Amino acid sequence: MSEPQRVSQAALQSFIYNCLVAEDIPPDDAAVVSRLMAEADVNGSDGHGVFRLAQYIERIQAGGMNRRPQLTVVSERAAMALVDGDNGLGHLAVNRAVEIAMEKAATTGVAWAGTRMSNHAGPAGLYARMPLRKDMIGIYMAVGNANHLPPWGGTDMLLSTNPIAVAVPTKSETPIVLDMATTVAAYGKVKTKAQRGEPMPEGWMIDRMGQPLTDPQRADEGFLLPIGGPKGYGLALIFGLLAGTLNGAAFGKAVIDFNADSKSTTNTGQMIIAVSVEAFCDVDAFKEAVDQVIVDIRSSPTLPGFDSIRLPGERAHSVRLDNEARGIPVHGALLEKLHVLADSLGVERLL
Amino acid sequence: MSEPQRVSQAALQSFIYNCLVAEDIPPDDAAVVSRLMAEADVNGSDGHGVFRLAQYIERIQAGGMNRRPQLTVVSERAAMALVDGDNGLGHLAVNRAVEIAMEKAATTGVAWAGTRMSNHAGPAGLYARMPLRKDMIGIYMAVGNANHLPPWGGTDMLLSTNPIAVAVPTKSETPIVLDMATTVAAYGKVKTKAQRGEPMPEGWMIDRMGQPLTDPQRADEGFLLPIGGPKGYGLALIFGLLAGTLNGAAFGKAVIDFNADSKSTTNTGQMIIAVSVEAFCDVDAFKEAVDQVIVDIRSSPTLPGFDSIRLPGERAHSVRLDNEARGIPVHGALLEKLHVLADSLGVERLL
Repeated sequence: MSEPQRVSQAALQSFIYNCLVAEDIPPDDAAVVSRLMAEADVNGSDGHGVFRLAQYIERIQAGGMNRRPQLTVVSERAAMALVDGDNGLGHLAVNRAVEIAMEKAATTGVAWAGTRMSNHAGPAGLYARMPLRKDMIGIYMAVGNANHLPPWGGTDMLLSTNPIAVAVPTKSETPIVLDMATTVAAYGKVKTKAQRGEPMPEGWMIDRMGQPLTDPQRADEGFLLPIGGPKGYGLALIFGLLAGTLNGAAFGKAVIDFNADSKSTTNTGQMIIAVSVEAFCDVDAFKEAVDQVIVDIRSSPTLPGFDSIRLPGERAHSVRLDNEARGIPVHGALLEKLHVLADSLGVERLL
Repeated sequence: MSEPQRVSQAALQSFIYNCLVAEDIPPDDAAVVSRLMAEADVNGSDGHGVFRLAQYIERIQAGGMNRRPQLTVVSERAAMALVDGDNGLGHLAVNRAVEIAMEKAATTGVAWAGTRMSNHAGPAGLYARMPLRKDMIGIYMAVGNANHLPPWGGTDMLLSTNPIAVAVPTKSETPIVLDMATTVAAYGKVKTKAQRGEPMPEGWMIDRMGQPLTDPQRADEGFLLPIGGPKGYGLALIFGLLAGTLNGAAFGKAVIDFNADSKSTTNTGQMIIAVSVEAFCDVDAFKEAVDQVIVDIRSSPTLPGFDSIRLPGERAHSVRLDNEARGIPVHGALLEKLHVLADSLGVERLL
């Protein structure tokens, strides 16, 4: 595989913006979505940024997503809100939900905002991070956009890899940002193994007889495994109820596989909690205490085979620094796809 | 091992109450704690109910826990509160936190209450369930009272099995109650294996060289493993920051091993979120939707080796029905210990 070419965050954001506007997305909405998508890429969430652009455009063109959504707050209390995304790009609904949660939490201390009639919105960590700039903790959960996980002991794929992300502010250290699927491997990792012709490790998937499945070409004959067996199943279920069912969004049987179907409304649900540290205690003292936990953890002796102890969010942070310095890598196959997209929309190519 | 004797929930609660009052715990506090401890036992959390009574009394007598705590709310906003438990029995601080969170959530939609200067408070599910009676969702996290988990790749035991519990109301079905440690096995399960002279399955623990540890007699030469490797480590870290550090409670190096040390103040931290379903949507419609998810899951065909699909909380519910009908089982060794305790306090024996 040839070396990827690198583009600046600003160039990537402009390209996405131009494509969305050419597809008749209102400029204000295109500005929000392109900023968040490029932000996902700069953080190294490369399966969730510009990689998804062609799929979003395809869904819009197929009539599965609304170009000009009117976002509405359908329920509201002092510390909660429910945003209806009107089937627009998911970034719009989630971005609005996070803004509302942060605004409310600034007075109430804690606030929770959910979405319904949203769509795929990129990586979980993107939204959990947003409250950090106001010295708030962010907690985000989402219903995944395709079911690859059966309940523990079963074979009906009723659950997705429903992720959680939590971001905690720090003083001198890199903020802690946990961003994880409730399965051992995300489905994207299986696809990557298939592309590379590599076997999967045991523990990622099982087949319909419950036997380990290690050939990624046979992925559709099996299921992802949840972390900790029944525990990960329980977490996927709970995150789905909180981010989906509670919001009147799709969960379980109602989830549309957005890779296989670009026409049906997904009614995706997400949720965010913003927690104002200031409401609990002195912000500086809290950040110093978190720094101390990080230092203690990093100082732990290591097991054989480990060079160092990592904190959640460290890898993304170092990728970000590298991407800011050298540009965001865009692999050949993706670049080719983006050229085709640009040409079809009459937009200037990325490179 | 002989068959356990069975006692009614009422008899167990009275016995605990009498012991606590004999130990000079104020009657109102003893009433709250004994009710919650017997409730833990009736739900089948048999490592977290009357099993802990002698340890609590020992800690009080050793000066490690305050007989007559004055609970105070040290921070408060519309949707949050922080309760200082004044180093009393943990049940008192957590019970107060849950009551406050539920009261606030009834108007604000969602509320979060934390504890500091609390103590061991029994099983996580006990508190997550409380909001159910008001058609609220309960989310509970706690810092465990002994560190048995190192960060991923490390050997310093800086983390506990920090649990989460989430309870979701239903209409006709048993409420969903997830109650789980962030490790593959809770430490209590290791102790049970040691008592029975049985080996542990691979995957529960590793030794200091990173090799599987299956002899429970050698448990102090190794560590528990987190669910999903780095993911479970991340969850244990996050739950500790949210339930501990945010509240000014102990986390990481500051955690006291309450099994080894009955004198030092543990400064235990817990947190609860109460979510009023009514704020989001019609309560009946929500409960019906959750019931439908449960029915769909239970209807899944099973993998070889599985008879049926279970939902989180189902096992506890069937144990509860059995315990209500036949009494709560008390094994011989525990009963003997309770007799010694009763005699030392001048209280009537349980049986």
